[in-house]
Amino acid sequence: MSIDRPEIRSFQPPVRTLMGPGPSDVPPRVLSALARPTVGHLDPAFVGMMDELKTLLRYAFQTRNELTFPVSGPGSLGMETCFVNLVSPGDKVIVCVNGVFGGRMAENVRRLGGVAVVVEDPWGAPVDPAKVEEAFAANPDAALLAFVHAETSTGALSDAAALAAIARRHGALTIMDCVTSLGGVPVLLDEWGIDAAYSGSQKCLSCTPGLSPVSFSEAAVARIKGRQGACPSWFQDLGLVLGYWSGAKRTYHHTAPVNPLYGLHESLVILAEEGLEAAWARHRDNHLRLRAGLEALGMRFVVSEEARLPQLNSVWVPEGVDEAAARTRLLQEFGLEIGAGLGALAGKVWRIGLMGHSSRPANVALCLSALETVIKG
Amino acid sequence: MSIDRPEIRSFQPPVRTLMGPGPSDVPPRVLSALARPTVGHLDPAFVGMMDELKTLLRYAFQTRNELTFPVSGPGSLGMETCFVNLVSPGDKVIVCVNGVFGGRMAENVRRLGGVAVVVEDPWGAPVDPAKVEEAFAANPDAALLAFVHAETSTGALSDAAALAAIARRHGALTIMDCVTSLGGVPVLLDEWGIDAAYSGSQKCLSCTPGLSPVSFSEAAVARIKGRQGACPSWFQDLGLVLGYWSGAKRTYHHTAPVNPLYGLHESLVILAEEGLEAAWARHRDNHLRLRAGLEALGMRFVVSEEARLPQLNSVWVPEGVDEAAARTRLLQEFGLEIGAGLGALAGKVWRIGLMGHSSRPANVALCLSALETVIKG
Repeated sequence: MSIDRPEIRSFQPPVRTLMGPGPSDVPPRVLSALARPTVGHLDPAFVGMMDELKTLLRYAFQTRNELTFPVSGPGSLGMETCFVNLVSPGDKVIVCVNGVFGGRMAENVRRLGGVAVVVEDPWGAPVDPAKVEEAFAANPDAALLAFVHAETSTGALSDAAALAAIARRHGALTIMDCVTSLGGVPVLLDEWGIDAAYSGSQKCLSCTPGLSPVSFSEAAVARIKGRQGACPSWFQDLGLVLGYWSGAKRTYHHTAPVNPLYGLHESLVILAEEGLEAAWARHRDNHLRLRAGLEALGMRFVVSEEARLPQLNSVWVPEGVDEAAARTRLLQEFGLEIGAGLGALAGKVWRIGLMGHSSRPANVALCLSALETVIKG
Repeated sequence: MSIDRPEIRSFQPPVRTLMGPGPSDVPPRVLSALARPTVGHLDPAFVGMMDELKTLLRYAFQTRNELTFPVSGPGSLGMETCFVNLVSPGDKVIVCVNGVFGGRMAENVRRLGGVAVVVEDPWGAPVDPAKVEEAFAANPDAALLAFVHAETSTGALSDAAALAAIARRHGALTIMDCVTSLGGVPVLLDEWGIDAAYSGSQKCLSCTPGLSPVSFSEAAVARIKGRQGACPSWFQDLGLVLGYWSGAKRTYHHTAPVNPLYGLHESLVILAEEGLEAAWARHRDNHLRLRAGLEALGMRFVVSEEARLPQLNSVWVPEGVDEAAARTRLLQEFGLEIGAGLGALAGKVWRIGLMGHSSRPANVALCLSALETVIKG
């Protein structure tokens, strides 16, 4: 044996309060669900659970889309699943960029040989529908519009209904990132006419990270079926994945992540028990509590009030405060994780998440009290 | 709200004994690890766990490869990660096909615009090195050789050392599927000179499904770095993934599946505690027990003795037995899952797994006793 046996023991993670941009706090019910006995991915009991999962996701997304299921990987893979199935080489896609994740969408388009027409808005601002209208006027051959509903890098919420309506008027399909919005603010796929949407398990659904719920409209499915040439990704080819997630006879495609799916099921049962409207109201209420406290501490929000996400609060780091040292102290002294800035906002902002199970008065109180301690020295 | 709140309760899976082609039985220690508190994917404690995970994987793979980590998705995504990073349009790849998973490799090559030179062997037989030698003679410009070490669809083990040596003589890199072999029979990446390998968490490692350990040699990394044009997959681009899994400063790429990684860590700690040689011997011993019992029942193996995998036993369904009905009875009456045939072997064989935690005398005894009951009516 050329590599010796390592002396490594079981990992015992510290207990944290997760108030960054995700993962959020995972409720004990979801953690327990993860530890239930593993069954086979073709077991009739598991197939029944998959059907329930699709029903629960359709409720969360407010859609009747048949093709609604969780991709077996994190949100970034869900993003790629949308693009790799809908964008063929040469396709023109209008991509709205107002933060990190819009930029990642444009990168997806380019790597697939598509043409990304980028509509830029400042970081922290929502997508401006007027600019999207102009982009369609200048590019009448654009086949798709892609935008981020809730920019995780800034905390800005864009007007999805308005953006989807513009795309529809121009005969284009819409791809929406709702990683951070699903479960925290209204996400109404059918009412808005969204054709492809992807989310993540670890934000307002408060499951552990690693799964990406997606949903596709009939128009999106028709586009996928009418595609010229094979999808470049075997793993993400929806034509193949469908055989496992739908239909009378479930055909083996890949081995589904059995226990993580137990966790997602449980988190969606919890959401259905609470009810979407109640969950949205709770996110709003806790945001208002946090806002009052942050403003009392003299802190300012990055995003203007009308576009502010209740579940992701970006604030400017107060002058004279070492932002990284403050976060380290929050983590070490209080076990509290908040998020740093990304990209253009790195080093300048904190991102305070109130997502899913993390959106509780107790978390708000801990965060305000701990922040006051580290800011005031 | 256009979609009503569904009335769905928590999912309580049945307790099964998993003796199919994976997932295998998950030990209680791994299930408990999954339920430990979630921390952030950039938490210093988590980064320390990631480093241990890489060390543990290097032991399992018997490699010093720096680029060794678990892909955030199932084995099929690990496969695609190898191909999408190493195959550019026009590249010629010799692909050995002796079952379902070799065929999937060829499909990966074609979808990426590569040229797959297929070397075929009968289902149930190992890859014939002489045919691979001929394929290189006919295709001296082949850049890569791809083969499946342990064909999960048939239970045949191929001579990885011999195949990698042929590729090396012809200046080609080697991609090896060791999804079903890792932890059950020797997998010696460095000794054999394998350049890219992928495995799965849910076979002989006995973790839950959903993660794919991979490892890349320095030559493979050099090929990836020297690539012309961007990797078509943003999510799987190893140049980007590396920033998160390696180096002094960990850069956010995607949100890692935190709790599933706890589970993989625990399963690898268990493997290191037992020791690789002891694990291989245990797989062999339990295979011999099972073989004796199956032969006493008059059953015949699909694979000849010298190429037979101890951890995956393919046997012909006895004449006169309704194979699907027998499996259903095993599941319903005994809670025992065994595998059906895939592809060319569908309806004709059973695949009995003795992988990881499932490779125990108690499982062998249950399987033989239950099989006798359903076969003899």
